[in-house]
Amino acid sequence: MTFENQGGEGRPAEPDRPEEPEHLRLIAEIEDKWRRALADLDNARKRHARELAHQAEAERRRVCLAWLPVVDNLELAIEHAGDRDDPLVHGLRAVRDQAVALLQSLGFPRHDETGVPFDPLRHDVAGVVDDPAVEPGTVVTVLRPGYGDPPDRQLRPAAVLVSRKQE
Amino acid sequence: MTFENQGGEGRPAEPDRPEEPEHLRLIAEIEDKWRRALADLDNARKRHARELAHQAEAERRRVCLAWLPVVDNLELAIEHAGDRDDPLVHGLRAVRDQAVALLQSLGFPRHDETGVPFDPLRHDVAGVVDDPAVEPGTVVTVLRPGYGDPPDRQLRPAAVLVSRKQE
Repeated sequence: MTFENQGGEGRPAEPDRPEEPEHLRLIAEIEDKWRRALADLDNARKRHARELAHQAEAERRRVCLAWLPVVDNLELAIEHAGDRDDPLVHGLRAVRDQAVALLQSLGFPRHDETGVPFDPLRHDVAGVVDDPAVEPGTVVTVLRPGYGDPPDRQLRPAAVLVSRKQE
Repeated sequence: MTFENQGGEGRPAEPDRPEEPEHLRLIAEIEDKWRRALADLDNARKRHARELAHQAEAERRRVCLAWLPVVDNLELAIEHAGDRDDPLVHGLRAVRDQAVALLQSLGFPRHDETGVPFDPLRHDVAGVVDDPAVEPGTVVTVLRPGYGDPPDRQLRPAAVLVSRKQE
């Protein structure tokens, strides 16, 4: 790009007239481009920092979500074993607790609370039950625990049974 | 910042002389700043893309490394159960296989090969054994499997017993 010739055409040839106004316009123009490039650079750096933070969290969530079926199946195996007094089952409960503690340390605490009010952000309703002993709209049973907290740090809501609302 | 006055001092007052050389110098100067800002912006974007890719991988590795003790303890529980024909043990082997397949799908294949030559990048020597039946410097037993591949995608080397080198 050359600036010397810009706007040169059609200008009256007046060699004794200072050309400052034309040059000042060019200077202002290129200075404006420079300032915009600096602003772009500043914005790019800020966006970069945000994206890095966001991406690490997204990757952590993605990987932990992939591990949940392993934890679920370990829990199913423990449940199938029932209450038998077997060192193997005790050992497996310890492994399950280790996995749950790990998920918590990575930002995704386990949620399997019963007796709490139904919350559409935290609970997927797998069924409705009649239970006159509890307040309507209460979580009665947790079929599958949830992990993490809505809206941004949730791996999944808990799958629950809820007491029927009064008509 | 103003450019109009830069270099203006000490300049002979010659109103009839065109001021083009001075203005051209200013234009070249600010144009140079603009070009450098554009180059910085370009470099920042390239570095950003590299950092994002690197960071996602680092986070994936960090999280998977944190899961390895869970997999190790599950395996220890299965080993302690021995060869008993118990549906629980069969179920646990399936969970273990699921975890190993997950690690592989995330970029960290399991390594527990025996009969292969010792490789300092892939093996931590936990002990040396005399075994005239195999080539010296061969992996005889894997005490703890390794995951991933050196140099960049390794979670950990395998802990192994190696046959003694011939003196």
